[in-house]
Amino acid sequence: MVENAASLALLLEQFASLEGRKVLVHGGGRLATSMAARLGIESQMVGGRRITDAEMLRVVTMVYGGLVNKSIVAGLQAKGVKAIGLTGADGDVIRSHKRPLKRVKMDDGTEQMVDFGFVGDVDKVDAQLLVGLIEGGSVPVVAPLTHDGEGHILNTNADTIASSVACALAGHYEVTLTFCFEKPGVLRDADDDGSVIPSIDEQLARQFISEGIISGGMIPKIENAFNALHQGVCRVVITHSDNIDGTRGTTIS
Amino acid sequence: MVENAASLALLLEQFASLEGRKVLVHGGGRLATSMAARLGIESQMVGGRRITDAEMLRVVTMVYGGLVNKSIVAGLQAKGVKAIGLTGADGDVIRSHKRPLKRVKMDDGTEQMVDFGFVGDVDKVDAQLLVGLIEGGSVPVVAPLTHDGEGHILNTNADTIASSVACALAGHYEVTLTFCFEKPGVLRDADDDGSVIPSIDEQLARQFISEGIISGGMIPKIENAFNALHQGVCRVVITHSDNIDGTRGTTIS
Repeated sequence: MVENAASLALLLEQFASLEGRKVLVHGGGRLATSMAARLGIESQMVGGRRITDAEMLRVVTMVYGGLVNKSIVAGLQAKGVKAIGLTGADGDVIRSHKRPLKRVKMDDGTEQMVDFGFVGDVDKVDAQLLVGLIEGGSVPVVAPLTHDGEGHILNTNADTIASSVACALAGHYEVTLTFCFEKPGVLRDADDDGSVIPSIDEQLARQFISEGIISGGMIPKIENAFNALHQGVCRVVITHSDNIDGTRGTTIS
Repeated sequence: MVENAASLALLLEQFASLEGRKVLVHGGGRLATSMAARLGIESQMVGGRRITDAEMLRVVTMVYGGLVNKSIVAGLQAKGVKAIGLTGADGDVIRSHKRPLKRVKMDDGTEQMVDFGFVGDVDKVDAQLLVGLIEGGSVPVVAPLTHDGEGHILNTNADTIASSVACALAGHYEVTLTFCFEKPGVLRDADDDGSVIPSIDEQLARQFISEGIISGGMIPKIENAFNALHQGVCRVVITHSDNIDGTRGTTIS
């Protein structure tokens, strides 16, 4: 989720120095939006999520699968990390299906059936392929794209990919899943970066969601976190992208 | 080098049905040119080769590494081929260096020192990584991008990549290298598709080049072909992309 050169360089530096086996999942939404704008394609968002029409699918395939993924891979290679870029289509590593029409709550409180377009909901992750690469010394770098097995690339939320990959690997490794973003963790007060909640369990999370303390884009992160914990991931951390070793931030348990 | 949907579908169909171990190397130049145009970036060509400035590098990284590579991978997956897309940066599979200033003969007969920009000349191919993937049942799909090991993606001619990969694999397999393009083979008369030269050796090729029968974009293909044969590739075929099993076309020996 880091889209300026200096922050990306720092993140890659930190990621390269992480001990142990690792996988990086990246996004690229802002870059996709700006590239789409340059191409005269309007980004349609509903409830904070992108509508992916055919034109936008081409843009995200280019930006996520090409520009962002290869920049990260080349950057990591320069630091001695044997990075290998993957979308879900590569090696059939992440299979998904096109999301059916979905009921979405609008900003005005009404509900609407939304067609998100070429968006994939994950069906399965081929852990064996990832384990093979990892045990061979490679570090998978995964773009937020999946495929349906019928020739279609589908746009898929990066947090969901990260969570799905972590769950698949939990059968093979003790997995820590770290979500990085532009805030230092889950905040008690969205306007105060000093109000990081150091640890949170499911009950407290539900309470914070109902009280509105946790809202917006943080909700799917939290949902993904608990989903991962239920499926055997040992530890989930939500933290700033300048702190990917997870020593600070919010630990979910 | 196939950039319309119907021809691509046919090529993937044929490629999927090829027996034995295989690697696909693709291009994407026309699509890159049209994408660049949509972004208001002018494609500069010198002597039939693209000048890759920083803006164009972003375009080819998107188009080759993202749009074209992932479309092919997803298309092959749909046909049961365990395709895995790679640029040279992925797994450090193809290392190159930025091309130094090069003396180029212009159309008007004069010579000029040309800076091709972010263009890579291949240094080495990691055959071991490719063999590992191939023996694991995967089919590498290689985009015409390499890297310098210092964090820079470099644009690299697809025919050169194909030839380099074929040479690297020649130490492990009996390799046939097939160059596909929009003509049915090397033609005696460029305007007559019926004038395919069925087979050609180095002496005859040199003669045809000096007589102007072989010219333009065919010359680097022929050079790559002999280079490959000298390095242990068993057979090189130049043929139309609707005939990738190489039963027709020109065989180089």
